[in-house]
Amino acid sequence: SDELFLISGPCVIEDERTMMTVAEQLKEISERLKIKVIYKSSFQKDNRSDLTYYTGPGLEKGIAILAKVKEQFGFPLLTDIHYPDQAAPVAEVVDVLQIPAYLCMQTTLMVAAAKTGRIINVKHGQFLAPENMKHPVKKIEDSGNNQIILTERGYTFGYNDLVVDPRSFYHMNSTGYPVVFDVTHAIRKYGIPSASASGGARQYLPVLARAGVAAGIDGLFIETHPCPSEALCDAASQLNIEQLEEFMKPLLELHAVTVKYANKPVPA
Amino acid sequence: SDELFLISGPCVIEDERTMMTVAEQLKEISERLKIKVIYKSSFQKDNRSDLTYYTGPGLEKGIAILAKVKEQFGFPLLTDIHYPDQAAPVAEVVDVLQIPAYLCMQTTLMVAAAKTGRIINVKHGQFLAPENMKHPVKKIEDSGNNQIILTERGYTFGYNDLVVDPRSFYHMNSTGYPVVFDVTHAIRKYGIPSASASGGARQYLPVLARAGVAAGIDGLFIETHPCPSEALCDAASQLNIEQLEEFMKPLLELHAVTVKYANKPVPA
Amino acid sequence: SDELFLISGPCVIEDERTMMTVAEQLKEISERLKIKVIYKSSFQKDNRSDLTYYTGPGLEKGIAILAKVKEQFGFPLLTDIHYPDQAAPVAEVVDVLQIPAYLCMQTTLMVAAAKTGRIINVKHGQFLAPENMKHPVKKIEDSGNNQIILTERGYTFGYNDLVVDPRSFYHMNSTGYPVVFDVTHAIRKYGIPSASASGGARQYLPVLARAGVAAGIDGLFIETHPCPSEALCDAASQLNIEQLEEFMKPLLELHAVTVKYANKPVPA
Amino acid sequence: SDELFLISGPCVIEDERTMMTVAEQLKEISERLKIKVIYKSSFQKDNRSDLTYYTGPGLEKGIAILAKVKEQFGFPLLTDIHYPDQAAPVAEVVDVLQIPAYLCMQTTLMVAAAKTGRIINVKHGQFLAPENMKHPVKKIEDSGNNQIILTERGYTFGYNDLVVDPRSFYHMNSTGYPVVFDVTHAIRKYGIPSASASGGARQYLPVLARAGVAAGIDGLFIETHPCPSEALCDAASQLNIEQLEEFMKPLLELHAVTVKYANKPVPA
Repeated sequence: SDELFLISGPCVIEDERTMMTVAEQLKEISERLKIKVIYKSSFQKDNRSDLTYYTGPGLEKGIAILAKVKEQFGFPLLTDIHYPDQAAPVAEVVDVLQIPAYLCMQTTLMVAAAKTGRIINVKHGQFLAPENMKHPVKKIEDSGNNQIILTERGYTFGYNDLVVDPRSFYHMNSTGYPVVFDVTHAIRKYGIPSASASGGARQYLPVLARAGVAAGIDGLFIETHPCPSEALCDAASQLNIEQLEEFMKPLLELHAVTVKYANKPVPA
Repeated sequence: SDELFLISGPCVIEDERTMMTVAEQLKEISERLKIKVIYKSSFQKDNRSDLTYYTGPGLEKGIAILAKVKEQFGFPLLTDIHYPDQAAPVAEVVDVLQIPAYLCMQTTLMVAAAKTGRIINVKHGQFLAPENMKHPVKKIEDSGNNQIILTERGYTFGYNDLVVDPRSFYHMNSTGYPVVFDVTHAIRKYGIPSASASGGARQYLPVLARAGVAAGIDGLFIETHPCPSEALCDAASQLNIEQLEEFMKPLLELHAVTVKYANKPVPA
Repeated sequence: SDELFLISGPCVIEDERTMMTVAEQLKEISERLKIKVIYKSSFQKDNRSDLTYYTGPGLEKGIAILAKVKEQFGFPLLTDIHYPDQAAPVAEVVDVLQIPAYLCMQTTLMVAAAKTGRIINVKHGQFLAPENMKHPVKKIEDSGNNQIILTERGYTFGYNDLVVDPRSFYHMNSTGYPVVFDVTHAIRKYGIPSASASGGARQYLPVLARAGVAAGIDGLFIETHPCPSEALCDAASQLNIEQLEEFMKPLLELHAVTVKYANKPVPA
Repeated sequence: SDELFLISGPCVIEDERTMMTVAEQLKEISERLKIKVIYKSSFQKDNRSDLTYYTGPGLEKGIAILAKVKEQFGFPLLTDIHYPDQAAPVAEVVDVLQIPAYLCMQTTLMVAAAKTGRIINVKHGQFLAPENMKHPVKKIEDSGNNQIILTERGYTFGYNDLVVDPRSFYHMNSTGYPVVFDVTHAIRKYGIPSASASGGARQYLPVLARAGVAAGIDGLFIETHPCPSEALCDAASQLNIEQLEEFMKPLLELHAVTVKYANKPVPA
């Protein structure tokens, strides 16, 4: 499609009411902006910094909530898995299985996900040169699946900082698969708990998203919450769902320009 | 102005015919695209890797050639200075004095440039956090000059590579001065002589320029030459002047979108 | 102990004869240099770049070979696990369970390893500020295990390169647990298959190892093979076992100096 | 010589009494530790962040003070120059002309310094791959001078941070010229004024210096002051001269080990 698609939803699955509130607003935005939305939320955050932090409701309860969202609003669903044995049960309900960035080189996990036949969204590892994303792509293809999405989310840049390199979009686009930009995680300040207001840098959201769209992405990934400061994970980086529609408008226009020029020979 | 402006010309001042050829084509492009062009070329490349490499015709001869370009085509002129005593004689003819990136912290040079009263274009040092560009800005202001341009050209990223961080445009824009993106030097591969074809990475030009424009720049800096492979400096990174017009078209459209949304409150 | 200890062995478990050859030579070196050796090899390399690359004999066969090494030579054993269900069966034979660098934030894996009661060696993630290694440490402690080793192996530095930051040893030492330096993986050139001679940079081994030892490590991790160029993994970075003894000698002397000054108040 | 030499003194030239106090203590340390000392101080800090910051007494007064230090204590002198016309007058008194890191690619400055016939100490640019230090070396040699010292002082690592890469010492050693490690500037936190206590990170001094010495340096560069918190520049990173002797002791022992093994074939 020539329209920018949107992957959005709360970072982690919280109570059903929160999940439905976000879904309802995403539905309205989807209709008003005429864009496709994939609903995203995690049932298990397995890489939080401390054992006492909330990690989600777990696979069974989490998938049940996602199923309700799908049933009620008709969104395709996306969630991330961390271990191979999660692939099959998640794939029963979820349309897009996401491989977390840290895990993008884990072969057993990748193959298990690929073999479900679902779409696989591979996050670009913060430690992997973007042209090397061809390796996870090939592992998925070699497992008989060619429904692949690649997602940029920032690359290691000194300590506790990530940089979004526009060249990464060039390399990921060259695989021929859809490319997504996860702007939410690109603004996380690791080393500061996400519950702290300084754990994210929302002031960069517009400039990063606009740069990414102009660099030629197909979809935007942005986590949204009705009240980010009270979110149970990534409180400092999720966007208030109330602000999403205005946030998207320039991006859709930039995307239209980019699409128009995508097939022109580039002067290089 | 709401139009993207262009800083362009050969990297280093070569023979008069080459300089006039580029100027003539820039004039035509300027008129067809209705954009303002500042003509750029260096009279002395003082940081080349080897004493045997061409460094330009020197100040006196170089400025004389630039004066002819100005006289014949009416362009404002930009050139870079490396030492304080070059500021005054260059300012007699040149409209924009450029401070090279490596020298953006050299106080005596900055003050000498500022005191000419000309516009000062400060390149963002490859080693300086972008928010710290406020320091050279203040040095210029404190010298009684508030005609300032800031130019991004990539930041040190491991060895022999530069990254263009969209957040840099955010910080430089927050100074309130015009911001330029020098895409030519962002694709230089230091450690490889610029005379070698692999000394630059032109394949990244479109994706970088588009990302930079969407991130909110006011001007684009791109070095151009009638036959880059035979250029006397930066042969691997200059753009063939024949390709410039097509290269600019999507950028102008992206810039129009960005300007339209520049004053809207950003959701952050 | 005040002696530098050594973690060594082939990268991946190969045929039994290769494994025994290395073990025998490690035994002799251990006795001649009077240092403690922990024998290391992997039963499953789960993050290789391509599905066709050798990943090892698998858990069951691999552990059986390691058990023979232990029985014959008396070494404590170290191997890495990638999934939680590998923790318990591996712990039956292996003394030190290693958490791979990419997986150092995976809570379920860390807790499963910790609960075996074995020593846990956590590799420092290439994307994690070294002071944040306190988080995996605390997860292990909070799981009731305080037998912990931390291992540096280089940090992301631009694309396809790793840097060894001496400050990392400062931070990891401040946890109070033994700190190891894995010099083998610090010289890997990712993006180049390890079967290619240019996939590693052995010329840096002495300078890196010496710097690491002087920075205050307790143990050195270096993979060894009787014929590295024919190794089934990391052929470009393993050290020929014949060279190990000479390689270690300056390190032991440097370590003796470091230990002597470790408890002196530092002028800072 | 096989002894580690020391380059030390206050960052910037302050009042004569401060300069003499430091010189006297350096003299005593030099005699007690039996090491050679080169006295270092700057007459002009040309790259401070703000026009109001102290930059030194200027060339004439500064050199006069340095001459008194030399006369009274017999130290060879080192100071840095920023502009070509400073080379000749400084060379009349000073033994080692230092090229600042930001300026290591400035040809005119380098050639002017080289032509004085004095020893040239080139600081490694924070933006230059260490193997590329061969370029300034060759410029000096090609100007008829082969008395060269190369000094590491940290490389750009994300924003407002520097990393000391042990591989840099490998590359600089391979030029065949003496290599120095400036540990004072490696711990500066740019972006924070040096007058602020958090503008430096002295806790890293021992670990960095020890790693550098073991990596094979010939000399250590460390700025010292009788009362760093009141120093007129780099207050957060200079070492209290009272602490210098104890700081040096482990370094001399590490250096002795390194020298002993320097000519042994390395297993690589």
